[in-house]
Amino acid sequence: MAVLLSYLATEIVVPVCAVIGILFSLVQWYLVSRVRVTPDRNAAPGGTNNAKKNGFNDYLIEEEEGLSDQNVVAKCAEIQNAISEGATSFLFTEYQYVGVFMVVFAVLIFLFLGSVKSFSTESQPCTYDVTTTCKPALATALFSTVAFLLGGITSLLSGFLGMKIATYANARTTLEARKGVGKAFIVAFRSGAVMGFLLAANGLLVLYITINLFQLYYGDDWEGLFEAITGYGLGGSAMALFGRVGGGIYTKAADVGADLVGKIERNIPEDDPRNPAVIADNVGDNVGDIAGMGSDLFGSYAESSCAALVVASISSFGINHEFTAMLYPLLISSMGILVCLITTLFATDFFEIKAVKDIEPALKKQLIISTVLMTIGIAIVSWVALPTSFTIYNFGVQKVVKNWQLFLCVSVGLWAGLIIGFVTEYYTSNAYSPVQDVADSCRTGAATNVIFGLALGYKSVIIPIFAIAVSIFVSFSFAAMYGIAVAALGMLSTIATGLAIDAYGPISDNAGGIAEMAGMSHRIRERTDALDAAGNTTAAIGKGFAIGSAALVSLALFGAFVSRAAISTVDVLTPKVFIGLIVGAMLPYWFSAMTMKSVGSAALKMVEEVRRQFNTIPGLMEGLAKPDYATCVKISTDASIKEMIPPGALVILTPLIVGTLFGVETLSGVLAGSLVSGVQVAISASNTGGAWDNAKKYIEAGASEHARTLGPKGSDPHKAAVIGDTIGDPLKDTSGPSLNILIKLMAVESLVFAPFFATHGGLLFKLF
Amino acid sequence: MAVLLSYLATEIVVPVCAVIGILFSLVQWYLVSRVRVTPDRNAAPGGTNNAKKNGFNDYLIEEEEGLSDQNVVAKCAEIQNAISEGATSFLFTEYQYVGVFMVVFAVLIFLFLGSVKSFSTESQPCTYDVTTTCKPALATALFSTVAFLLGGITSLLSGFLGMKIATYANARTTLEARKGVGKAFIVAFRSGAVMGFLLAANGLLVLYITINLFQLYYGDDWEGLFEAITGYGLGGSAMALFGRVGGGIYTKAADVGADLVGKIERNIPEDDPRNPAVIADNVGDNVGDIAGMGSDLFGSYAESSCAALVVASISSFGINHEFTAMLYPLLISSMGILVCLITTLFATDFFEIKAVKDIEPALKKQLIISTVLMTIGIAIVSWVALPTSFTIYNFGVQKVVKNWQLFLCVSVGLWAGLIIGFVTEYYTSNAYSPVQDVADSCRTGAATNVIFGLALGYKSVIIPIFAIAVSIFVSFSFAAMYGIAVAALGMLSTIATGLAIDAYGPISDNAGGIAEMAGMSHRIRERTDALDAAGNTTAAIGKGFAIGSAALVSLALFGAFVSRAAISTVDVLTPKVFIGLIVGAMLPYWFSAMTMKSVGSAALKMVEEVRRQFNTIPGLMEGLAKPDYATCVKISTDASIKEMIPPGALVILTPLIVGTLFGVETLSGVLAGSLVSGVQVAISASNTGGAWDNAKKYIEAGASEHARTLGPKGSDPHKAAVIGDTIGDPLKDTSGPSLNILIKLMAVESLVFAPFFATHGGLLFKLF
Repeated sequence: MAVLLSYLATEIVVPVCAVIGILFSLVQWYLVSRVRVTPDRNAAPGGTNNAKKNGFNDYLIEEEEGLSDQNVVAKCAEIQNAISEGATSFLFTEYQYVGVFMVVFAVLIFLFLGSVKSFSTESQPCTYDVTTTCKPALATALFSTVAFLLGGITSLLSGFLGMKIATYANARTTLEARKGVGKAFIVAFRSGAVMGFLLAANGLLVLYITINLFQLYYGDDWEGLFEAITGYGLGGSAMALFGRVGGGIYTKAADVGADLVGKIERNIPEDDPRNPAVIADNVGDNVGDIAGMGSDLFGSYAESSCAALVVASISSFGINHEFTAMLYPLLISSMGILVCLITTLFATDFFEIKAVKDIEPALKKQLIISTVLMTIGIAIVSWVALPTSFTIYNFGVQKVVKNWQLFLCVSVGLWAGLIIGFVTEYYTSNAYSPVQDVADSCRTGAATNVIFGLALGYKSVIIPIFAIAVSIFVSFSFAAMYGIAVAALGMLSTIATGLAIDAYGPISDNAGGIAEMAGMSHRIRERTDALDAAGNTTAAIGKGFAIGSAALVSLALFGAFVSRAAISTVDVLTPKVFIGLIVGAMLPYWFSAMTMKSVGSAALKMVEEVRRQFNTIPGLMEGLAKPDYATCVKISTDASIKEMIPPGALVILTPLIVGTLFGVETLSGVLAGSLVSGVQVAISASNTGGAWDNAKKYIEAGASEHARTLGPKGSDPHKAAVIGDTIGDPLKDTSGPSLNILIKLMAVESLVFAPFFATHGGLLFKLF
Repeated sequence: MAVLLSYLATEIVVPVCAVIGILFSLVQWYLVSRVRVTPDRNAAPGGTNNAKKNGFNDYLIEEEEGLSDQNVVAKCAEIQNAISEGATSFLFTEYQYVGVFMVVFAVLIFLFLGSVKSFSTESQPCTYDVTTTCKPALATALFSTVAFLLGGITSLLSGFLGMKIATYANARTTLEARKGVGKAFIVAFRSGAVMGFLLAANGLLVLYITINLFQLYYGDDWEGLFEAITGYGLGGSAMALFGRVGGGIYTKAADVGADLVGKIERNIPEDDPRNPAVIADNVGDNVGDIAGMGSDLFGSYAESSCAALVVASISSFGINHEFTAMLYPLLISSMGILVCLITTLFATDFFEIKAVKDIEPALKKQLIISTVLMTIGIAIVSWVALPTSFTIYNFGVQKVVKNWQLFLCVSVGLWAGLIIGFVTEYYTSNAYSPVQDVADSCRTGAATNVIFGLALGYKSVIIPIFAIAVSIFVSFSFAAMYGIAVAALGMLSTIATGLAIDAYGPISDNAGGIAEMAGMSHRIRERTDALDAAGNTTAAIGKGFAIGSAALVSLALFGAFVSRAAISTVDVLTPKVFIGLIVGAMLPYWFSAMTMKSVGSAALKMVEEVRRQFNTIPGLMEGLAKPDYATCVKISTDASIKEMIPPGALVILTPLIVGTLFGVETLSGVLAGSLVSGVQVAISASNTGGAWDNAKKYIEAGASEHARTLGPKGSDPHKAAVIGDTIGDPLKDTSGPSLNILIKLMAVESLVFAPFFATHGGLLFKLF
């Protein structure tokens, strides 16, 4: 049955959309670059000659006029450089380890997969259609390895570029804040968009090219082709381990370390330039929240595409070689880029932010607009790219699916994402009662703050889980594991917008830090704080998306694993599966214990160094001497690399050990258990942390009658709120988001190694 | 195949052992009662005439000599009365609600089960052997209801008696502390033993009598008989809901409320008589940790017996009417009573506690001795009561099991319990590095204390889960769901000892409170503190046992439910099951959010009242006026009853709603999900809380060089530790332990209502 979109059209549409995305991000970059951070040597020092400043025609608003403006600009540039250097240095240190890891893991993949058929170079009958001949398992081993490396490099590149633009934009956001909150918002948001579009478009383009190149060898053996492509997902996810876990430990070691000495012991403000860990803290925002989040979402995107493709390859699309329908996941992503492009214009060009209170609604509108437009987009893609009826492989049988059913699968994922976003906003924004209640509980001290915050996090799990459950039920019922995979893709289809509003957060956070360090007036700081408060909420929303999509992706990968490992049922009521389930449900706790302990240990090292500097550098507290920022950056870098090894090993080794020793049934249990348990821990951890952070900001901002009764800064309730904020840091930025990696990476690793486990696994049971 | 133990012998052995247990507990009660709390009017007031005091021949040690001893005794008696009255008043208030609930629920059970065959009074073919005739479903409905009421009343009685002896023993422990730590220990431990033996023996006796009475009607229809008996488990568990959740909210509302104002705002010591909430706090220890824990473990015991019996009734034991083998679970419990009796003598008579450092090893020895002896006991019972080979029903097929295999099933549960106990001790006792590390983290403030504490709790989950997984694997592989049920029974076989060492904790806690309130010297307080610190650890061990056995019990009930609902597999890879699994895994979070919020709200009410009294009662802070204890007791009582309704409703309604609307597959998913997720949350919550409590005690006691660098009381690290302790209170005593109820009660409720769900369930799917 022919589809409306021809083979040729598909081959054109996908790369063109990807290129449009890349070009759009370059345009955004250019617009951001028009804000100058080099002092204008021709300008008069007094500040009267401020017209045409920073490439725009706006006058700077009054409060900076009295200051020597050129000095502020120079100082911002200096701080930006320090942050950028710190971030680059961390990433390059990390890449050395990543490089070694990638090589070792690539060798492992090749050996494990090659050993399935004893490294034979002979062609073999296809698994799902034994009458035809497929390429040898050794080829799949080789191409999987190549795809793995490509996925890893793409993820790395996306994270690196995201970090570059973020550190490029932070000082510019600060400087624009002088003109007004709207201008600053646009710079921060555009920079986020650069990251979002680059990542989405790059991911799509590399995947598209890889498929086409691999096809030169595989020809009509699509089963082998798309099995090999799963390596791309594994590569993306493996990088995310470093980005999320390493970056997460980095950022919070620096943040907690800086706060413990600065805010609590020395009673100096956040981001005070006297604090030696302040640069490390700002670097952390970039390596953790930008590069880490980027690699996490890239991983999800790559994995859900791969999961959908591998299931499609053994469904009617693959069997009948319907190329356009086969590339349906990539077409959805292409449409997503176009939709996000339009959506971005709503924030940057169609509407204007005039006041602080407009920020959160503007970001919320981004979510709504992109979701509504994307729903239409999905309908179009489903109409032109899918036959009206087709079959999807479902654990041994082919299930008939209609195109409108697949439309519903993708849409339900998309809308579940929106619901998760809204719920997250409700529980973490200080505009609503949950965070205000938490703030109020600070009256009775830090203990009640923590109790209420934990309860809030637990409660915030309810609706997202129902949303995820409904999308699973709908997509699973309509199109089995393919449905789940495309539901995940649906949630991630607006990834460019999602990342833009997410990356906006740390950029604003940095902007605030730079304003403080450059000694800008408190009114500038108030504006950046308002941007940052909205950023905390969007960061929580981003984490909500990340974990929601991770849940769907893992389930899709899990389903693909089960298919590939040729298990027909995963019956909870068998001992092998049940012990897997309960141990799997334990893994998020083990993993979180490790990551939290890692942050704790790294933060203590930071505390010692900061204390040492305060005690030994004369004049530091008085602002007469400069602290040694570089040592703190180095401590964070070294500690994060070292401390990420145990949790990383847990994630990487668990599937290998369980699969090899206990076999595919127990591994299935482990995957299901860690999935259903990890989602809860992750959501509650990131929302609890976000709520504490904003409860603190709520008291500090003092924007309402109620908030003022709790403040001001330095009051007892505020101190209690600071304690909550500090506890929340590792929860929301390290252990919570890292759990996405745990559940996804274990699933994709199992999928890639499935043929090996199915052949050689379960040694322990074979022995007895 | 005949077994060594004849029908008649079984009919004699079980009730005799139960009666021995009851008699033994009465002897212990008598021994405790010899400590007099009525002032001896003939004694000289100076303290020279202290010989023959308190019914023993020991001299009181020197430090009390200077005080007017008679006044202290009188004051102790007075405080004890206040506590006892408060506890009794709470329990009676609770019973009014319990009564209504029991009646409503009993009616529900009768209607739901009666409706399965439309209230027909005609006999029906048996489910598992259609050639024979079984009693009508209406009879099962009626007898299930009766069994439910009996289970509820037995639980209620056990909790009440436990609370009575605890409030009887607390002041006696204080008074004995004057003679030495060993004497005090023995009083506290004996009182715990009264509770333990009464509960174990009562539970066994009532169950035994019920079976025999029901048999008068059912005759040879053992299938119907033991289906009806499952109501006993449901009754026990339903009471535990009130005990654990209501009691848990009570105890922590009072404790947190008292601490927030007393320790933090007013800077007065814990248990200071000036604090108006101090009596409520001490009442709370009794209603929460004694009555609540008792009803929880009784529920587990009743449920695991019922789960084993219902599976056995459709296995060869039931089909061939082998009465002795059928009553194997009751014989194990009978043996347990004898073993625990001997074990208790080791603590009270064979060895002597001479110093503080002997307490924890003595309690640990109890665990080891009971486990070793019980292993022999299980071997004996398995040898005399089981045929060498028999069959067990396993989801549709009969599985051949050897008697030594069943011995291994019970033993593996027993030893898993010991391992869980040891691990819990390691993570919560301040004798080991984990708690010391947490205490050390208080140097950098409350935030690091909380982060390290949470990480400790997460980490403490690992080994218990492996222990549970191994026992599940072994018992499941050998004897399917029957194996799981007897493994749970194995873990609970030493319940009398377990409860004794567990109840010892709150009794010592109360003793310390009474010492403080009666104004006894600090050396007495040091002794009771040492008893109490060991009690925190044993309380955590008790919670470990409770959750470990709850996990096994729930799984056994889940298996029995699946059998009874006639499902053959619970395949994770079906949408109906998977959404159940993920939503089930969310329920512990929802439930914990509710219980923590409940404690928070109730505590805030208490805070207001305590503040009000401090502000309005002149001379209260100076100790010149007496606070109004009764109002605080009333606030706790009312708040706990009111606040337990939402979490209670969640537990009770979830299986009914899911079963009725979504059917048995989804309900299976919910049960499995909440089981594997709830276990983790429960273990981590109670260990985190225990560790924080003991980290604080570690700093306060200052027993080592390291501890002294952190102290003394009132230092910054100590303040940070107090915050951790306060946060831990609801975690370890309310939300954590309440989760046992969540997972067990949902499972047993599903089991009882299984015929209804199988017939009328899944309405929503039937509609579409």
